[in-house]
Amino acid sequence: MLAEDIRNSGIDVADLNQLKCDLNRLQPVDVGDYITQLPTQQRAIAFRLLNKNQATDVFEYLPPEVQEELINSLHDLQVVQIVETMSPDDRAELFDELPAKVVKRLLQELSPEQRQATATILGYPEGTAGRVMTTEYVRLRQGLTVGAALSKMRLQDRDKESIYYAYVTDDNRKLVSVVSLRQLLFTFPDVLIGDIASDRVVKVRTETPQEEVAHLMQRYDLIALPVVDREERLVGIITIDDVVDILQEEATEDIQKLAGVGDGDEAALSPPLVTIKKRLPWLLGIMFLYIGASSAIAPFQSTIAMVPVLAVIMPLFSNTGGTVGIQALTVTIRGLGVGEVTPKDTLKILRKELMAGMGTALTLGLTMICLSLIWAPPQERWVSLVAGCVMATNTLVAVTLGTLLPMGLKRLKLDPALMSGPLVTTMLDAIGFMIFLTLISTALHIFQLKS
Amino acid sequence: MLAEDIRNSGIDVADLNQLKCDLNRLQPVDVGDYITQLPTQQRAIAFRLLNKNQATDVFEYLPPEVQEELINSLHDLQVVQIVETMSPDDRAELFDELPAKVVKRLLQELSPEQRQATATILGYPEGTAGRVMTTEYVRLRQGLTVGAALSKMRLQDRDKESIYYAYVTDDNRKLVSVVSLRQLLFTFPDVLIGDIASDRVVKVRTETPQEEVAHLMQRYDLIALPVVDREERLVGIITIDDVVDILQEEATEDIQKLAGVGDGDEAALSPPLVTIKKRLPWLLGIMFLYIGASSAIAPFQSTIAMVPVLAVIMPLFSNTGGTVGIQALTVTIRGLGVGEVTPKDTLKILRKELMAGMGTALTLGLTMICLSLIWAPPQERWVSLVAGCVMATNTLVAVTLGTLLPMGLKRLKLDPALMSGPLVTTMLDAIGFMIFLTLISTALHIFQLKS
Repeated sequence: MLAEDIRNSGIDVADLNQLKCDLNRLQPVDVGDYITQLPTQQRAIAFRLLNKNQATDVFEYLPPEVQEELINSLHDLQVVQIVETMSPDDRAELFDELPAKVVKRLLQELSPEQRQATATILGYPEGTAGRVMTTEYVRLRQGLTVGAALSKMRLQDRDKESIYYAYVTDDNRKLVSVVSLRQLLFTFPDVLIGDIASDRVVKVRTETPQEEVAHLMQRYDLIALPVVDREERLVGIITIDDVVDILQEEATEDIQKLAGVGDGDEAALSPPLVTIKKRLPWLLGIMFLYIGASSAIAPFQSTIAMVPVLAVIMPLFSNTGGTVGIQALTVTIRGLGVGEVTPKDTLKILRKELMAGMGTALTLGLTMICLSLIWAPPQERWVSLVAGCVMATNTLVAVTLGTLLPMGLKRLKLDPALMSGPLVTTMLDAIGFMIFLTLISTALHIFQLKS
Repeated sequence: MLAEDIRNSGIDVADLNQLKCDLNRLQPVDVGDYITQLPTQQRAIAFRLLNKNQATDVFEYLPPEVQEELINSLHDLQVVQIVETMSPDDRAELFDELPAKVVKRLLQELSPEQRQATATILGYPEGTAGRVMTTEYVRLRQGLTVGAALSKMRLQDRDKESIYYAYVTDDNRKLVSVVSLRQLLFTFPDVLIGDIASDRVVKVRTETPQEEVAHLMQRYDLIALPVVDREERLVGIITIDDVVDILQEEATEDIQKLAGVGDGDEAALSPPLVTIKKRLPWLLGIMFLYIGASSAIAPFQSTIAMVPVLAVIMPLFSNTGGTVGIQALTVTIRGLGVGEVTPKDTLKILRKELMAGMGTALTLGLTMICLSLIWAPPQERWVSLVAGCVMATNTLVAVTLGTLLPMGLKRLKLDPALMSGPLVTTMLDAIGFMIFLTLISTALHIFQLKS
């Protein structure tokens, strides 16, 4: 079948031996990238050139759609072999993406042990520690000696994903302490595990959110973190490579949501339809919300006809005020995102923002006055003064909203990044225009009464 | 001296034993946080309760200003002991922050070996692999057996920061291959290292930028990465815990720079003066740049006086166009930041953005027409049509600028995140207002000629 496929695909057979040699020598992730960029009909051929270990490793790095395609075009036996040797967390991720029918068939063909491991992981909700953990870890019983522990690991733990920490449990599988492979290696073989293991174990529950897992591992510089169930029984571990990916994803989400990209997970090379789906709803939402801001201006059309310099000043005013708000919003959201601050710090941050905001308000207000004098004809110079005062006020409103809105969402256990930048600028425009135009109209009215 | 300090500080001596016990049992990073939040005069007291190992570990987690304070208030002997046992990369980071005089004194008191290690690291420019690496790694010579390698590690590598990979070098210290501790442990003692070590070594040069280091380690799921000099000689390794911090910092920088926060490293709890210093220059810069956009409006004041509904429509127009630009900008900058795309993909991204942009342009243009009909009096309804067309055009300009500007900066080897959101909205406003008002004025002119 391979030979026939190769004839049909037009690949030069003489090069195949060289290719096979290369593909088995390269890093799995690089081979994964190579296979992904091949035309569809050549992917399965290239994949079948891999030897057994390399095939499993490469498979884990392929994007879900290519994985599914390969599952459909490879021999069943080979598919089962690969899926059986995948690590349980990667397998769970794969099953998440595949059609239910395929998953059911594959589950039936797995060994009972691996089937159980996958079912356990898939039983936890997405985004929790239970879902990203692997069930392959090194467990030692209390009372073993260092030498016996090392022998046990040599015999039984050869294929475990991470062997750099071993977790010590009691007779009920309760997690008691942790010992590093380094400690085992540097201690005499007849010392008891209990004498060197540390009971300062940083651990999480299966239901702990994955961001919290990531922050804990970062804080304590861990390369693996044990996961326990409600009865404190060890059920899995989370490894640092998964956490690095989680941290990247979370940062991408924060940054994109702030910009008004739905879900915050658009890739630069997403297809156009995905791009439209993620961005357009926000844009339309913001346009409709902006009816509020525009309606704040509409009643003042006669004022604007009388003082047309307002149309020159208002956009400057709105652009600057919006930027002030987004700055405060971004610093607050990122502070929450990296775990620097919590809603408890709201008042502390607000105080700091307002103190800094006063300096900013003064400077921006004065600049506003100077700049608007450029465009105002002599009889409309008084407008500059009003613009400066409103600019200063709006600055203080902007930093307040930029701080309080995300903190409020976080306190309500919602995602603070839902408060996107465009939402804040829209609110600020509505408030700012309203104040500004009301003041100008009132002033005009008073002038008219006087004259 | 400790006793006297305690009397002066008002701490209850009876509690001290309990405190000492707790502080030596807790995780170093937690003790670091505890000491940092103490009043200044109590910090040194608490720190002196730590035993030798814990003291070094805790010291590495303290913020620079507290480290400096402790160096000034502890006995010289204790300071030297701590600094001597710190890992070379943490020590280099500390020396970076301390006054030159203090560094010089401390360097003199270090052992020649540690002095050399620190000098090496400090010799590389900030932000490069050489500066974040540690010089403590496990090096094995080719030709050793597995058993001999493990014995060598037990004897000589007890204090190395990371022992989970051992690097095999030739007689000239050139990096040849890598072997994991897992492999050593799972292989018979009389096998030669050369037979199990892998020559697929992912490595970086001392001058490689730290972001690239982080991306490589993430891509290949490594927990340590070797650093070589120009002659391919092994000089250090970078460990995953440092890389996690680098990735977080880079993400924070991207997100904050996009929002117009200078340097992109403001903390939510930075003092107000720092906040002003980081944000105000951008705000003022943007206000002055905005003179361009406002000047695009100024000549049309008479037009606006004639068609005041323009003042209602223009802010809606500017807010929406700005959001479109920021969405494209953010997705592109993040794509560059996580290494998903490079400037080579510019055309691919632009094509996708324009394709999605056409759908968006059509929808937003139509929405614009409908919304502006709300405010336009009957004789000014034709303005809505112009507004819709300009909105659509501006959408396409926005996605183009949002893609090309950061890609251009990246191609010029500049930081793409310098192209902040407010900068893009300012440009878009200038372009949009100019087109819009020119069209309206021309139309007005034609109507007047006709009537």
